[in-house]
Amino acid sequence: MADTNAPKQQNQKQGGKGNELKLPTRAENFSDWYNDLVKRAKLADNSDVRGSMVIRPNGYALWENMQRVLDGMFKDTGHQNAYFPVLIPEAYLAKEKKHVADFAPQVAVVTHAGGKALPEGERYVIRPTSETIINRSFTNWVQSYRDLPLLINQWANVIRWEMRPRLFLRTTEFLWQEGHTCHVDEADAQAETLRMLDVYETFARDYMAMPVIKGQKTESEKFPGAVRTYSIEAMMQDKKALQAGTSHMLGQNFAKMFDTMYQSKEGKKEYVWQTSWGVSTRLIGALIMTHSDDAGLVVPPRLAPTHLVIVIIGRTPEERGPVREKAHTMAAEAKKVGIRVLVDDDETKGPGFKYAEYELRGVCVRAELGPKDLAQNQVTLVRRDVKEKVAVSIDQAIGKVSEMLEGMQQDLLARATEHKNANTFEVNTLEELKDKAGKGFLLMHWDGTPETEARIKEEFGLTTRNRPFDLKQEPGRCIMTGNPSAGRIVFATAY
Amino acid sequence: MADTNAPKQQNQKQGGKGNELKLPTRAENFSDWYNDLVKRAKLADNSDVRGSMVIRPNGYALWENMQRVLDGMFKDTGHQNAYFPVLIPEAYLAKEKKHVADFAPQVAVVTHAGGKALPEGERYVIRPTSETIINRSFTNWVQSYRDLPLLINQWANVIRWEMRPRLFLRTTEFLWQEGHTCHVDEADAQAETLRMLDVYETFARDYMAMPVIKGQKTESEKFPGAVRTYSIEAMMQDKKALQAGTSHMLGQNFAKMFDTMYQSKEGKKEYVWQTSWGVSTRLIGALIMTHSDDAGLVVPPRLAPTHLVIVIIGRTPEERGPVREKAHTMAAEAKKVGIRVLVDDDETKGPGFKYAEYELRGVCVRAELGPKDLAQNQVTLVRRDVKEKVAVSIDQAIGKVSEMLEGMQQDLLARATEHKNANTFEVNTLEELKDKAGKGFLLMHWDGTPETEARIKEEFGLTTRNRPFDLKQEPGRCIMTGNPSAGRIVFATAY
Repeated sequence: MADTNAPKQQNQKQGGKGNELKLPTRAENFSDWYNDLVKRAKLADNSDVRGSMVIRPNGYALWENMQRVLDGMFKDTGHQNAYFPVLIPEAYLAKEKKHVADFAPQVAVVTHAGGKALPEGERYVIRPTSETIINRSFTNWVQSYRDLPLLINQWANVIRWEMRPRLFLRTTEFLWQEGHTCHVDEADAQAETLRMLDVYETFARDYMAMPVIKGQKTESEKFPGAVRTYSIEAMMQDKKALQAGTSHMLGQNFAKMFDTMYQSKEGKKEYVWQTSWGVSTRLIGALIMTHSDDAGLVVPPRLAPTHLVIVIIGRTPEERGPVREKAHTMAAEAKKVGIRVLVDDDETKGPGFKYAEYELRGVCVRAELGPKDLAQNQVTLVRRDVKEKVAVSIDQAIGKVSEMLEGMQQDLLARATEHKNANTFEVNTLEELKDKAGKGFLLMHWDGTPETEARIKEEFGLTTRNRPFDLKQEPGRCIMTGNPSAGRIVFATAY
Repeated sequence: MADTNAPKQQNQKQGGKGNELKLPTRAENFSDWYNDLVKRAKLADNSDVRGSMVIRPNGYALWENMQRVLDGMFKDTGHQNAYFPVLIPEAYLAKEKKHVADFAPQVAVVTHAGGKALPEGERYVIRPTSETIINRSFTNWVQSYRDLPLLINQWANVIRWEMRPRLFLRTTEFLWQEGHTCHVDEADAQAETLRMLDVYETFARDYMAMPVIKGQKTESEKFPGAVRTYSIEAMMQDKKALQAGTSHMLGQNFAKMFDTMYQSKEGKKEYVWQTSWGVSTRLIGALIMTHSDDAGLVVPPRLAPTHLVIVIIGRTPEERGPVREKAHTMAAEAKKVGIRVLVDDDETKGPGFKYAEYELRGVCVRAELGPKDLAQNQVTLVRRDVKEKVAVSIDQAIGKVSEMLEGMQQDLLARATEHKNANTFEVNTLEELKDKAGKGFLLMHWDGTPETEARIKEEFGLTTRNRPFDLKQEPGRCIMTGNPSAGRIVFATAY
């Protein structure tokens, strides 16, 4: 069977473009580089459905790896998966005022079904998020304080009609997980909100090799219906911010709309306190823009679909035979220690073409193995991020690959952390603000009003990202108005 | 944190029903028994969304286990996962005549989105199946014979508007996997169609402990747009048939509608040959109706979310303390050998209540452990299906549990196979037909016309299930018309 992961000569048949495999560089045009990379590495395609993408096998494999890790982390913290209808009665959405105001303009509405027009009061929206329909079930499930906390997660597709779509980053339909929980009191709900934000931070750092700033969103950036919203914010290579995950303390807002109540130990009826939290396929965009380079995709080994490709070199069947045999021995050995490995024995393409293609696709380590190597009992290994060639003895090759993968995981995080730190600034004057706007995370004093927040957005293209937990809050003066500020907050140009 | 898997006293607050935990028996009313079991074992709820269910954690855990096994089997046979838009342009569906005729009355239509009415030509349907939108991508992905076979699978939700919904069996929205593949020629597509049917049979037999009949569907029961459809058919305890999975040879029908072509070795443009195949959350209904009993859910160990529950017995803290310690030691030992184990230390409910509740929920083996057991260094084990009590020494308990799980897996299959065989009949006369209709799988000669097929359905409530591969095809005479028949086919009352 054809291995759809094996590289193919591209653009040959359309004519014109020939063997032009080079991406635009990040320095030339970061945005074009990103779009081209996503398509050329076969991660995702645009579709005929407004703002919706097709996630191709190479992209979906990244999502599967993310899912597997996150799902394990959710279960380890006591959560269970469930599944709720994709269609939400229009009337549910309308129950929470801020919720409907924010989401109504973004939803897709089903007005006909089963061959008929639905009566006005029986129309559905496709879920843009599931607080409402899930609360409808929670109202049935929760009776007593003994039923709490109730810790549920859902893996699902959602739709938010998107006017300016970009592959992975902003799409009409996206895949995500949404956690929804009920608690006896505010303290327990608040603890859950922060616990899941910690889970997201850990996942971003230890698996995506992506350092994040953890903190609280401003009032105007809150989730519609939440009391408090928290986020993790990452810095992309172009110094823009990307909100990578959010966790909301919902208070009793949805509980009151749906009468989600429990009987307390004292026998009183009380509304539950709730949280919700989510990350989405947007993380794939974040992963790409954090680590990839002008040659293509770079993926942290802990999430990489392919750790190692062994490329067989040789001009004749006589040359290739023994090399092939050795390659498969190496592959078997690699599999035993959990290395996801591919052997490329395609004779129709040259090694140079293949190397470029596997770099584009983000395979972590490439092994080059030919008859000369075999004669010397050695193999050449090349780590995707640093591209340094290392010749090692074949007997030690797999041990060396494991070492390179571990080193790569650590180096990617170190490099991304250095980049974030180097581009995070305390900004105290309008001059500095003009100079630094769009160049990283700006820690600024702000008077806390939505008006000033809006002015900064309009004049400098900067939005508030969050108020970092690990930043000591010292009072100061708003950079725009001079009014008192309780402490600095992160501003940045954001995706 | 509250363990939502721990049993709770039910129906106490609604009043009236009190501790009434007994299900209707299967003999009394199989349909009520099924509906009650699904709700009382907390597998799924109805929702306010027409025909759509909520899959609760206990039900979703079964689906996750099925998914994990099937996904592994698909990958082992060379398939890759991808994801395509849930919305399909209405115009796509219309491209294949039979396809649109069958699906148009079942779809949900999105006419408004992003706060506006969509222009007539830009409306979407929610996918009832994805042949059309996936072919649109395949047209871009496939260029040369080197790209073939292209072997893709998608895990997704679909909607088919359902007039007579039943939890898991027929729901407006359901979860499924849909495989979609492209091949160079008919032989290769046909081989794939049968390969995946074999995968389904293996999964049903070796994991669900559910024997199936593998065979070809009649013309009138084909998938709309397919050249040939194959199915696996299982027999439920009430002797009705349930179609548990289908695999379709699509020929070049969709390829021609979407111009999905490849360049052959000889340089000619050819349409690809295709297959599609799927199983859904309906399998959970099949699992329940194959093995469960009047006490509740029975799940084959290879798919069971919980293999073993250790119930701690004891009236005082002094009694419970050492028992608890031993229970956790046993649980740790069980986990090491891959047994999914739960320790129940809830003091607020009695053992009898718990035993009934764990039987209802389908935990495979129950261990009863109290101070007297401890004194004798023994534990009582009860296998869910046979309910026999076995006292074993604590040191040997986990080994014994492993043995019981293996035995249960085999016995469930043996029992279901016996049931299927005992209720499969060769039927040769109208008298026999009247006698046996609705009582199992009827192997009958039929003249092959849709008219006679429709008559048998109308007069006896029987539909053709499939023409079994393992049944020697010998000519005969149609039971209704006396016209020639090429061989027997399975008729049954079906879900």
